[in-house]
Amino acid sequence: SGLVLVKNPHLDLMEEDVLYHLDLGTKTHNLPAMFGDIKFVCVGGSPNRMRAFAQFMHRELGLGDAEDVADICAGSDRYAMYRAGPVLSISHGMGIPSISIMLHELIKLLHHAKCRDVTIIRIGTSGGLGIEAGSVVITDTAVDSSFQPRFEQVVLGDVVVRSTQLDKDLAEELLACSKDIPDFPTLIGHTMCTYDFYEGQGRLDGALCSFSSEKKLAYLRRAYDAGVRNIEMESTAFAALCGMCGLKGESRHFHLA
Amino acid sequence: SGLVLVKNPHLDLMEEDVLYHLDLGTKTHNLPAMFGDIKFVCVGGSPNRMRAFAQFMHRELGLGDAEDVADICAGSDRYAMYRAGPVLSISHGMGIPSISIMLHELIKLLHHAKCRDVTIIRIGTSGGLGIEAGSVVITDTAVDSSFQPRFEQVVLGDVVVRSTQLDKDLAEELLACSKDIPDFPTLIGHTMCTYDFYEGQGRLDGALCSFSSEKKLAYLRRAYDAGVRNIEMESTAFAALCGMCGLKGESRHFHLA
Repeated sequence: SGLVLVKNPHLDLMEEDVLYHLDLGTKTHNLPAMFGDIKFVCVGGSPNRMRAFAQFMHRELGLGDAEDVADICAGSDRYAMYRAGPVLSISHGMGIPSISIMLHELIKLLHHAKCRDVTIIRIGTSGGLGIEAGSVVITDTAVDSSFQPRFEQVVLGDVVVRSTQLDKDLAEELLACSKDIPDFPTLIGHTMCTYDFYEGQGRLDGALCSFSSEKKLAYLRRAYDAGVRNIEMESTAFAALCGMCGLKGESRHFHLA
Repeated sequence: SGLVLVKNPHLDLMEEDVLYHLDLGTKTHNLPAMFGDIKFVCVGGSPNRMRAFAQFMHRELGLGDAEDVADICAGSDRYAMYRAGPVLSISHGMGIPSISIMLHELIKLLHHAKCRDVTIIRIGTSGGLGIEAGSVVITDTAVDSSFQPRFEQVVLGDVVVRSTQLDKDLAEELLACSKDIPDFPTLIGHTMCTYDFYEGQGRLDGALCSFSSEKKLAYLRRAYDAGVRNIEMESTAFAALCGMCGLKGESRHFHLA
């Protein structure tokens, strides 16, 4: 049916669903009227960048003055949300816990709004591995810090393992689009997701660093040999949650470093 | 000496240290002049709340008009930072990865600024366990979702276990302060830290929920029996990082739910 799935039998029994961190709810807002025609959701870490992206889409779609895009979640300072025609642009902050809260509430929003055939794309910066600076990496599979295609979710104290496969057709489609844009070298590869920016990604400039430059390079070389082409902090949770809820998902990263 | 410790031999070899997510750096800013007299750092999730807290401290300290506190990190939309006399007020977003990035850069900031005898306090909302709504929980020990006083940090793919003990004297001092304020029931207890707001904390209203109300209550009862009095998403990383860097740390939570 193309509808977004929620997998929670308790939701049907609730009189009202408050999407607390988005400052939206089923009783306070007419979600089908506000969001029913959404077809694309783009998510990224920084609120300013997601505002700029919404303005860009506004202009690309010929929707008039792009300056006046309003933050739909203005009543909350946790996330920012903008729309441009059928495109929703939302910030998710940094790291797996932050994007998870947003995705739980976004998925319920799309479900309540009865959206159909929604494609979700994460766009963000990342650290590249053995690729040209300025490259765009389209993720085929998100892997954890042991290079495994899995997301470990703790549910009531027990670890549940989930798949982090992303939509292969969507990845190929995005790669085909990139052929028309000459300035961005684009490739498909694995994206490694860590819980930490400094020690977890082998940076030598955090407040703590217990390893040598050689150990760092050996780890990053093992990652490269396992197919990893870039590193960020949200892709495994993104892939696992979107996959379980029937959202065609893709994670696309601009390697800036 | 009371100085803030960094445990990274590479830092001494760097010509410049850019605190990227704070939009500050050792070459672009005179950090000792800007921050050398800081004695207290208060951190919390929401930028708006940390601004309101800085304004409150401004008024409490008799520093004049509180409306004009400026965001020291205005060039970055990752975190917000305000100061009121010797008090620094900083937002850290939601979850362990987000607070970890901020703490790495904050600890380096306090180190570069040659600050002495700094006390750091996390103030935030949390879900309470078996306590009156509106209570303040002062954390003695942060525990993980298995109720263990540990923080598992992945360093180059390997798991390193760190202690999450907080400063007991500071906890007692804060409890003593609370005696003067009649309206807030205050207690000392363990704080459980999870990587997820919905499935990890036993909520029944996420996009995914595979457990019954009974299973949820049984888990929360086990947590209570282990000494847990509230649940949030940053305390183990906060305790581990502050502890390793010689910052006298305390985590204080307002239970709102």
